[in-house]
Amino acid sequence: MPSITRDQVKVPADVMPEVRETYIDNYLKATRNTGRLMLFACDQKMEHLNGDFYGEGIDPSDNDPEHLFQIGQEGVIGVLAGQRGLIARYAPDYPEINFLVKMNSKTNLVKTAQDDPYSPQLHDLEAVLAMREAGVNIVGLGYTIYLGSEYESTMLAEAGELIAQAHANGLIVVLWIYPRGKAVADEKAPALIAGAAGAALCLGADFVKVNPPKDTEEATSAQSLAIASQAAGRTGLVCAGGSKADAKEFLSNLYDQIHVGGACGNATGRNIHMRSLEEAVRLTKAISAITLADYEVDDALAVYNGEADFAL
Amino acid sequence: MPSITRDQVKVPADVMPEVRETYIDNYLKATRNTGRLMLFACDQKMEHLNGDFYGEGIDPSDNDPEHLFQIGQEGVIGVLAGQRGLIARYAPDYPEINFLVKMNSKTNLVKTAQDDPYSPQLHDLEAVLAMREAGVNIVGLGYTIYLGSEYESTMLAEAGELIAQAHANGLIVVLWIYPRGKAVADEKAPALIAGAAGAALCLGADFVKVNPPKDTEEATSAQSLAIASQAAGRTGLVCAGGSKADAKEFLSNLYDQIHVGGACGNATGRNIHMRSLEEAVRLTKAISAITLADYEVDDALAVYNGEADFAL
Amino acid sequence: MPSITRDQVKVPADVMPEVRETYIDNYLKATRNTGRLMLFACDQKMEHLNGDFYGEGIDPSDNDPEHLFQIGQEGVIGVLAGQRGLIARYAPDYPEINFLVKMNSKTNLVKTAQDDPYSPQLHDLEAVLAMREAGVNIVGLGYTIYLGSEYESTMLAEAGELIAQAHANGLIVVLWIYPRGKAVADEKAPALIAGAAGAALCLGADFVKVNPPKDTEEATSAQSLAIASQAAGRTGLVCAGGSKADAKEFLSNLYDQIHVGGACGNATGRNIHMRSLEEAVRLTKAISAITLADYEVDDALAVYNGEADFAL
Amino acid sequence: MPSITRDQVKVPADVMPEVRETYIDNYLKATRNTGRLMLFACDQKMEHLNGDFYGEGIDPSDNDPEHLFQIGQEGVIGVLAGQRGLIARYAPDYPEINFLVKMNSKTNLVKTAQDDPYSPQLHDLEAVLAMREAGVNIVGLGYTIYLGSEYESTMLAEAGELIAQAHANGLIVVLWIYPRGKAVADEKAPALIAGAAGAALCLGADFVKVNPPKDTEEATSAQSLAIASQAAGRTGLVCAGGSKADAKEFLSNLYDQIHVGGACGNATGRNIHMRSLEEAVRLTKAISAITLADYEVDDALAVYNGEADFAL
Amino acid sequence: MPSITRDQVKVPADVMPEVRETYIDNYLKATRNTGRLMLFACDQKMEHLNGDFYGEGIDPSDNDPEHLFQIGQEGVIGVLAGQRGLIARYAPDYPEINFLVKMNSKTNLVKTAQDDPYSPQLHDLEAVLAMREAGVNIVGLGYTIYLGSEYESTMLAEAGELIAQAHANGLIVVLWIYPRGKAVADEKAPALIAGAAGAALCLGADFVKVNPPKDTEEATSAQSLAIASQAAGRTGLVCAGGSKADAKEFLSNLYDQIHVGGACGNATGRNIHMRSLEEAVRLTKAISAITLADYEVDDALAVYNGEADFAL
Repeated sequence: MPSITRDQVKVPADVMPEVRETYIDNYLKATRNTGRLMLFACDQKMEHLNGDFYGEGIDPSDNDPEHLFQIGQEGVIGVLAGQRGLIARYAPDYPEINFLVKMNSKTNLVKTAQDDPYSPQLHDLEAVLAMREAGVNIVGLGYTIYLGSEYESTMLAEAGELIAQAHANGLIVVLWIYPRGKAVADEKAPALIAGAAGAALCLGADFVKVNPPKDTEEATSAQSLAIASQAAGRTGLVCAGGSKADAKEFLSNLYDQIHVGGACGNATGRNIHMRSLEEAVRLTKAISAITLADYEVDDALAVYNGEADFAL
Repeated sequence: MPSITRDQVKVPADVMPEVRETYIDNYLKATRNTGRLMLFACDQKMEHLNGDFYGEGIDPSDNDPEHLFQIGQEGVIGVLAGQRGLIARYAPDYPEINFLVKMNSKTNLVKTAQDDPYSPQLHDLEAVLAMREAGVNIVGLGYTIYLGSEYESTMLAEAGELIAQAHANGLIVVLWIYPRGKAVADEKAPALIAGAAGAALCLGADFVKVNPPKDTEEATSAQSLAIASQAAGRTGLVCAGGSKADAKEFLSNLYDQIHVGGACGNATGRNIHMRSLEEAVRLTKAISAITLADYEVDDALAVYNGEADFAL
Repeated sequence: MPSITRDQVKVPADVMPEVRETYIDNYLKATRNTGRLMLFACDQKMEHLNGDFYGEGIDPSDNDPEHLFQIGQEGVIGVLAGQRGLIARYAPDYPEINFLVKMNSKTNLVKTAQDDPYSPQLHDLEAVLAMREAGVNIVGLGYTIYLGSEYESTMLAEAGELIAQAHANGLIVVLWIYPRGKAVADEKAPALIAGAAGAALCLGADFVKVNPPKDTEEATSAQSLAIASQAAGRTGLVCAGGSKADAKEFLSNLYDQIHVGGACGNATGRNIHMRSLEEAVRLTKAISAITLADYEVDDALAVYNGEADFAL
Repeated sequence: MPSITRDQVKVPADVMPEVRETYIDNYLKATRNTGRLMLFACDQKMEHLNGDFYGEGIDPSDNDPEHLFQIGQEGVIGVLAGQRGLIARYAPDYPEINFLVKMNSKTNLVKTAQDDPYSPQLHDLEAVLAMREAGVNIVGLGYTIYLGSEYESTMLAEAGELIAQAHANGLIVVLWIYPRGKAVADEKAPALIAGAAGAALCLGADFVKVNPPKDTEEATSAQSLAIASQAAGRTGLVCAGGSKADAKEFLSNLYDQIHVGGACGNATGRNIHMRSLEEAVRLTKAISAITLADYEVDDALAVYNGEADFAL
Repeated sequence: MPSITRDQVKVPADVMPEVRETYIDNYLKATRNTGRLMLFACDQKMEHLNGDFYGEGIDPSDNDPEHLFQIGQEGVIGVLAGQRGLIARYAPDYPEINFLVKMNSKTNLVKTAQDDPYSPQLHDLEAVLAMREAGVNIVGLGYTIYLGSEYESTMLAEAGELIAQAHANGLIVVLWIYPRGKAVADEKAPALIAGAAGAALCLGADFVKVNPPKDTEEATSAQSLAIASQAAGRTGLVCAGGSKADAKEFLSNLYDQIHVGGACGNATGRNIHMRSLEEAVRLTKAISAITLADYEVDDALAVYNGEADFAL
């Protein structure tokens, strides 16, 4: 079972000395002292509007946003990622959750065929620091970059500055990087995913969330992911969970991403919150069992099926 | 009759401790101690130019902007929403009205076919805070977002930052969210309205004003609104009043929006101010009777018809 | 003859208490204690380049910019409106003139068919305040908005912020509002002019300069102007003088604008400065006689013809 | 021979009292106590890249940028105008030269047919003030505006703010104004040149550099220039030297620009620096003899031919 | 062997007196006391994504970003240039390397046919200064300008301001200047390369990295480079190394660039890091032998072949 000490945290040089201990605290909280990240993605209410929360195949409880926080509290996660406003509304009742503030967001109404994607920063970092100061348990930031968009430059600049400021204030940063735009023919080409991983490193992110590369004739998704994980260097790579899938297949893929693909975590949203509270909680535990405790797939599946419990 | 105490106000975590009491004061003033919002919308002189204020079917008194303030004073409302400049000109003579400063506005001259809509922020928050400091009874801010516009990103960013700053200064925030632009085929589709409600929550708004969803084969407008109200979570949803309608039908719809649709208020402009002062005042009372005091439709109609009075 | 006292000045609520007396001073200086505005427009050297100052039908003295200041000094005006730089060059020799700094300007080289109009703010307000501090007799600001331009949003935002800042510093503000752009089919339609007047009120302007509405089958220009004047509420409406016209016709129109149309002043440039100094001075006096002293047209014409003098 | 005293300098009202003496110092240094400006234009290394410095008809010494400074030191000039970076590299070895920092620049790679011209401000004024503070002999700023470009608004705004700030810090300002862009059919039409001159005045420039108007059936270039010089009012007009020409013709044109056209100086680059150091030095003296000392053409030509010397 | 003393460093005038010694320190560190620059370019993980680090013909070790730092430590270089984030991640373990922070970057996904290139500044200078303050051995900045791009203006403005600020803080600056965009037909035309060199001087850069000019009928690449080197004046010109080439040819070209072309250094990335650590280290030594110690080609080749060692 992976476990790291304070001394083993690789603190980047842009973490100012006076916040070094804060950064280490946040890094260990987010990774539950493992160096691995289990990120519960709760930013889709803006990104996908209500489509991920209400409709066929989605548990009715998911339409109430508090569902997300209940899962975050009763399940086992590293961080709950959501927009600042969402967190501000519920955080007072969920003080134990580690929050990661997703700094930018867009809706899915304008498609790439109409205009390349740009996801704007929704507020200054100061607003996040003030909330932390007021007692909200914020451990880090998130930001999405659409690499290859005609607006790539704005997102690179916003992300670059945010990472510098976040580290200077002891916060960790997770980048979501998705190649997308008229210039991008194949968003999941292995070389592109590896490129996204390296770009995150150049910007100084602590973790980068990417989509799993597609399977090719030369390599499986997990094998290609291993190249990307290495290209990310000291930035930890985590895979997006994607749309709702069968639990066994999902956990199996996750296992391969970590043990073949060198991923150091996962970022999962829909697969979790579209289920009932009880089932969602079990799934977070199963995912965390693999991500944070190196469980085998079958053992994790037993956790999901309620045949075993998992706690840290 | 709905009524909440100071302790029951759900203060979001971005309200800084030193302005917590101010926020609660403003929330209770705006909702008249009910948690429900009766918003008198007086921002259309910019949005619709003079078309809502002069012409056939409009009482001549509506052409004089002071009409709005007279209604606000003699009627029963929660807040009067208008642009900063408009409020600055009349507020000294109407000190009792609760003002909500509409921070952005556009005219209706450029249509969506020519360019997607963008409504610019008209001034910094500092200008509002200074007016409050100088004694104007300002309880909150308003901001309009056209979701799905090609300029959505600018409005999301302006709104996101404004909400953070407003809460940090003890002000409440109402978002007007309308899906609109070349990418939006059906502005009143139920799923879109629910999406708009959730987006407001992600941004941290206290209330969101949306258009009522259209009736569909599966659900009435009020039934669909119930989904949107739930999707808004701890952000209160209020419905736009729309163009001038028959009073009975209007009040009946409002009743359903609240009691079927889960709305916690209304936002009405033209339906009120296009009438004579006396009639307009009676309509505000009838609306408030439903919104703030859970009147039945017929009882509210009696208020509108002058057969009964309503006061808080 | 109109005359107002300090107590009668309607001070808007965004004038901070510490500059209240300054604002009243400036308002009374600009209106010569009448509440009416005679604005001598001297900003066309940028707006129309040299076309209004040299050529057929223009007195040769008009090519020397000092002509404008000589008229301003020897004639009777409320304020001389010009760009900051122009005023800076001549103000030391004309300390008695009340100056209104026109904050934005564009040339007429790019036509609407090529691009919608945008007139940029030429400098920060600080530059104006510094000049005032250094002793220049500046009483207010001016700003032009092209309503209906694709760049309307930028101008609304610049104007909105400037008005807030100007009032906070005790300065009055005059907006020039012209509907113009590909979306505007008829720039002088009565409803549009009334809309422009209301927009100025929403922004908080003290005065708004509009073009006279066109004559229609339903109403004369002056009758339509009356609707616009009422729609402007507590913002005073003044009419642009337009291109050079016969003095009698010009004065007659002005009289109607005030006495039928409810205008509270005028804004005239070319009609004045295209004439010789002596004739221009007489015309300012005739205009002021109507605007500031309620002269009849014939009496004002006598002033223009040198048969009578006019002074305040 | 023109000569002015400190008292005769027309100090504009935006020069703050505490820097009044500095402004007068700079004005007199730049004009060599004459009120006339001999500007040696050395900004073309960016504007025209290396095309003006290397190739047929250009002295080989011109390829070394130090050539410019050697001319500036050994010749007779008012100011040497160049970009901040260029000046920073050589100023320590040429402490006697009066430097004018050209604040904006573009290359000539993108032609007007592809995009209208915009020349960006290269740095804040603070960078210039710091260099002055550190001992560099900077007397003023320069800025280029392409009037009629679709980007005119950005340049007007940058120039307007720079002039305010420069004067507030005691620096003089020279505007280069060239009508250019898809909207400009005839860049050298006399009315346009006069318009450019007036626009410079509205912005508050001390001097404006324009191209000589073209000859027309009605007026020679110099006669049209006289209109423009008058339209510039208290802003001094100087003519661009243009591409390399025969010395006699060049000096003859300059003489007419001053004595017929009312110009108060010249701005010359290529005509000077494309020659060998020795010849270039003689040409600066000949130019200055006409500009600063009212020499006749033949006397100035004798200076150029080395038959007479000229010094101030 | 070139060698310069502290007194021989030409300190530009925008280096403030209080950081003069810091600037000289940085200049001498970067040039290893020679005035010549051996820049190891490690910014391509963003610029070329992972294409330069993984694939056919590339040593597998290159996929791990730490490879770059190992080369930088064991080889002989002047500076290692990379993005701030990349440096922040590894600098704590490589304290001896001189770092040059590449301030802007873009990916290669959007091609010029789709949109002209713009490389955005990734963060403020403050973020770099803070890292330096915290102990990272940063000697300077880098910035890329695509001259002739439609976004040239933004890059010129960002670079111009950065150079002023960097010098004011004692840092050296290297500009990468590449003519590129729809307006640029021939990116390596000798006159363009010379123009780029001169533009760097106008902006005040310490060094400019350009591509070698192409061979023409009139001149070899190195001969044309000599013109560009002279046009750069006091800004040192260094050549980009380009794609991976045979070592002998590469060293031979470098020799000519310096001894014929007047270059004062080189900037090489792919040619070095695509090799195994051991081979890459030897190549850095061979390059430095020529650049910093005036070795002949054959002697440098012996170093590359491991037949001789090179150290400073």
